[in-house]
Amino acid sequence: MAVYKSDHSDILFNLIDVLKVQNIEEYGFDESSVKEILNEYDKFVENEIYPTRQKSDEEGVKLTPNGVIAPACFQSVTKSYYEMGWFALGLPEEIGGSPVPHALSTMCLSLSAGANTAWSMYPGLSKGALNVLRLVGDDYIKSTYLEPMITGRFGGTMCLTEAGAGSDVGNLKTTAKPIDGENGWYSIKGTKIFISSGESDLYENNIHLVLARTPQGKPGPKGISLFLVPRYRLNDDGSNGESNDVRCSGVEHKMGIHGSATCVMNFGDNDDCRGYLIGNEFEGMQNMFIMMNEARLDVGIQGESQASLAYELTKQYAAERVQFGTSIIDLPDVRRTLLKMRAMSRGLRSLMLYTSNLFDLAKTDKKYESYIGLLVPICKAFGSDAGFNTCVDAVQVHGGYGYCTEYGIEQFVRDTKIASLYEGTNGIQAIDFVMRKILKDKGAALRAISEDVFKTSNQLSDEFSFERGIFSKSLAAAQDAMGFIGKMAKENKMNMVLQNCTDFLELSSHIVVAWRLMESAWIANEKIEAGASDDEKEFLESKIVDFKIYCSHYLVDAIARSKTITSSTADILEYKI
Amino acid sequence: MAVYKSDHSDILFNLIDVLKVQNIEEYGFDESSVKEILNEYDKFVENEIYPTRQKSDEEGVKLTPNGVIAPACFQSVTKSYYEMGWFALGLPEEIGGSPVPHALSTMCLSLSAGANTAWSMYPGLSKGALNVLRLVGDDYIKSTYLEPMITGRFGGTMCLTEAGAGSDVGNLKTTAKPIDGENGWYSIKGTKIFISSGESDLYENNIHLVLARTPQGKPGPKGISLFLVPRYRLNDDGSNGESNDVRCSGVEHKMGIHGSATCVMNFGDNDDCRGYLIGNEFEGMQNMFIMMNEARLDVGIQGESQASLAYELTKQYAAERVQFGTSIIDLPDVRRTLLKMRAMSRGLRSLMLYTSNLFDLAKTDKKYESYIGLLVPICKAFGSDAGFNTCVDAVQVHGGYGYCTEYGIEQFVRDTKIASLYEGTNGIQAIDFVMRKILKDKGAALRAISEDVFKTSNQLSDEFSFERGIFSKSLAAAQDAMGFIGKMAKENKMNMVLQNCTDFLELSSHIVVAWRLMESAWIANEKIEAGASDDEKEFLESKIVDFKIYCSHYLVDAIARSKTITSSTADILEYKI
Repeated sequence: MAVYKSDHSDILFNLIDVLKVQNIEEYGFDESSVKEILNEYDKFVENEIYPTRQKSDEEGVKLTPNGVIAPACFQSVTKSYYEMGWFALGLPEEIGGSPVPHALSTMCLSLSAGANTAWSMYPGLSKGALNVLRLVGDDYIKSTYLEPMITGRFGGTMCLTEAGAGSDVGNLKTTAKPIDGENGWYSIKGTKIFISSGESDLYENNIHLVLARTPQGKPGPKGISLFLVPRYRLNDDGSNGESNDVRCSGVEHKMGIHGSATCVMNFGDNDDCRGYLIGNEFEGMQNMFIMMNEARLDVGIQGESQASLAYELTKQYAAERVQFGTSIIDLPDVRRTLLKMRAMSRGLRSLMLYTSNLFDLAKTDKKYESYIGLLVPICKAFGSDAGFNTCVDAVQVHGGYGYCTEYGIEQFVRDTKIASLYEGTNGIQAIDFVMRKILKDKGAALRAISEDVFKTSNQLSDEFSFERGIFSKSLAAAQDAMGFIGKMAKENKMNMVLQNCTDFLELSSHIVVAWRLMESAWIANEKIEAGASDDEKEFLESKIVDFKIYCSHYLVDAIARSKTITSSTADILEYKI
Repeated sequence: MAVYKSDHSDILFNLIDVLKVQNIEEYGFDESSVKEILNEYDKFVENEIYPTRQKSDEEGVKLTPNGVIAPACFQSVTKSYYEMGWFALGLPEEIGGSPVPHALSTMCLSLSAGANTAWSMYPGLSKGALNVLRLVGDDYIKSTYLEPMITGRFGGTMCLTEAGAGSDVGNLKTTAKPIDGENGWYSIKGTKIFISSGESDLYENNIHLVLARTPQGKPGPKGISLFLVPRYRLNDDGSNGESNDVRCSGVEHKMGIHGSATCVMNFGDNDDCRGYLIGNEFEGMQNMFIMMNEARLDVGIQGESQASLAYELTKQYAAERVQFGTSIIDLPDVRRTLLKMRAMSRGLRSLMLYTSNLFDLAKTDKKYESYIGLLVPICKAFGSDAGFNTCVDAVQVHGGYGYCTEYGIEQFVRDTKIASLYEGTNGIQAIDFVMRKILKDKGAALRAISEDVFKTSNQLSDEFSFERGIFSKSLAAAQDAMGFIGKMAKENKMNMVLQNCTDFLELSSHIVVAWRLMESAWIANEKIEAGASDDEKEFLESKIVDFKIYCSHYLVDAIARSKTITSSTADILEYKI
């Protein structure tokens, strides 16, 4: 039976050889400190998180008269996670955190999300809420809530969606009325749906960040403000006081992530729910989305990480499974699928870590902010879609066994699917990518990254003539497609822009991922030439194979997507349905 | 809330305008008899089968000390199905069947498989077993078993797979020893796994067709014989007698098709299990696979049919769901996805019905047998994969709601996945396609169909200049790819053939589906020019749109797959993993 395994060599190669996170002065890390943290974290994931994966899928969450009960196996892993200080990883020192290079904390997050996405969402959402509070909250909020959230007494949530306000958050109906004589406090009333980790017994108290409209709030997104709404009010000594008229009235039954509580949350059923204004009135949307780039990257990582672990388990299965007198790993069609899975999951990893590292680089070089803006929707949308498809491949290699819950492989497909839907559907990501990240800045960020891509591809030696060819064709295809979209925008044919966003995002994603794998192959090649041990060499050669497989099996699709875009002769809404 | 709907206009268009099944003399049908059967069947599906879809998914099957219990809601629908004579549809008259054009019975099957694949597998497997018995069984078998199987007292199964013999069926270990003095009867011993409808309380008796090896049977597929093994032995009056030492020892918990009993079947635990030889000794494999083409087509239809219904439900949802002040059906990215779903599900339908109709044509023109051989692996593999992807699109359009079981959409994804795995994995289909259906007959069938495709594409008017261009590029790309594969075969580089089968099947599938949609568009165009009512015209124009969308969004991928194939410079097994 396949056992938990992480792609250790590739992870270190990305962090140390490609991104060189040990050189970021701010953290004072060296190679060994990077390795030590990774090793320890990976042990925690293997021994504590991974064993909960299938168990929590079977058990699911329960809504009881006393609130939501998380899977029982989540109790001890959550406790240890906070006690061992893993939650504090990557948080600033002044609030009790342990700063580490951004890509390193992202990599740790990837390991836990891969091992059990459902579990990882509890601390994940809490960290999201905590970050908003530390950046926008006033002194009262910071002194009262940060410490118990970092130590794991309190868990945080983000409450945006309502039944009629999904992608269209601005349409929400929840209200907030100032309470006379109580500065900053409002009476909250409304119902939120799809609230991940909305309530659970993993925390003493659940701290909700709630978007609501104040009496002066205009319709639409600009009239919305942000409130902190605890499940239990706090006594003066910080202990839980009386109920704050917040109630989970339902939990969703879902395709996957069964261990994650997806709650319907009722605020103020008895007109006795109090919320505290966070940041300025009417600035709720921007404050809630203050860490949006990180949050969307994290969702992309849910795709990447599950694809990576699914690959590791599938490779083991294929090595063990004998048919026709041979391990199926030695059947060409199976080997092909496995190599595709490896190239894609490593490609996604290299993209996620590269993007994550930009958060550090952007502190000293502002140009990287626009890189982040451009790459985040790719990480989110392509990470979730390609990650999902890779998990589907894992099922396929397992044959009928892949379809049976016992083997835990089909769970990857079910758990990963959510990533294309929440935190802005992938359709929303594609529109953000084209409309805001490219057209709005007149393609400046796109040009800057394209130059970097060009530079790398010019280094390709003759050994890579096919790859060089397909690369330059893909870049030309991207230019054609962008030219077409730009022309439509200029002619104000906005539907013909909007109908092509998804395809352009996919096209761009293939180029970006191939670029990251190309740089990896280049570095691997240099290391081989500089002289590597046999063991090292086997890994380094696999990096060159990843790049080749990606080019021949995925990058070629970029050209097809360009054709799709440039062939659109009609406004798609003219086609009746 | 979306309600059951079938794509009635398109179904009739395929049967009557494209395939003209009313003209097949053998059946003496006219247009109105085709319509009448379809209408009645569709009503049955809507009122009896569809309501069981979500219910049976929730309830699943149970293994009790008295055997396997199917979902309770399956009792009455199964009873009515047999009583109304639907099971007999398409069976020969001499055994009490109601012959209808092959494509019409296939279409009916599609409607029920779309509405609830799990349920449709009980009569589906039974029909498979029945067909083997009527074609290969001796008089004793036919006079004893056919009637109760047609009336629904008995249900049939097909028992092939064992733990170590999945794709490699020939490696099976189940044994059959002749019973002294009882001509035709053997003592059966072994364990089969993944047996669909292996046992259930929907039938009085379960009739197993079991592959096993007799004492003289050589290792491998050529030493295998086929046996009929009833769950209960029969008394002389045909009523159930004592137990035949057949036992279901486990049911699989699966990703989907929860209502279908996937059984571990133990034969002869107490050395008291009797089986009757069907056909000649050692001809078990060919006898079991006698209806293989039909069976594989049926699995492709599971993909097609669920994609079709998922599309219908998603279209309704998109029309009802308002975001940003508009029905989301009028957002370009959503419209695009829906049009892609429609083009794909209709494209698959036209392929399935075309292929099905070939079974009738082949009776008078043998050349169509090779068409069937070539198209069946495409129907099975591409039908299941593209059907699955279309169901994934359905979830995406539903956003978060698509992920919640309540809406019944994610169930399509879970239920459809099985189709790529059983009845020969899609990898096996691809190898069959290239090795047996193309290389073995030196490309004769491929050339014959290609000529038909050419003929149709030459009819394209200037209005379709993009489509004509992409079509001829795709055909050229197919030739390149086939040329490459042929060259590798000639040089005996068989791994380099085998590693490209899946991509070549996908490439060919896109061309074949586009071809069927092209012919439909052509016929629709003729009907418009001949003068059609406004209602008719709207439908006919949609057929032209389907073809255009398929070309711009899917057919372009054929060129990418050709690139993938022709760029393989290495035997993929040389890449270490």
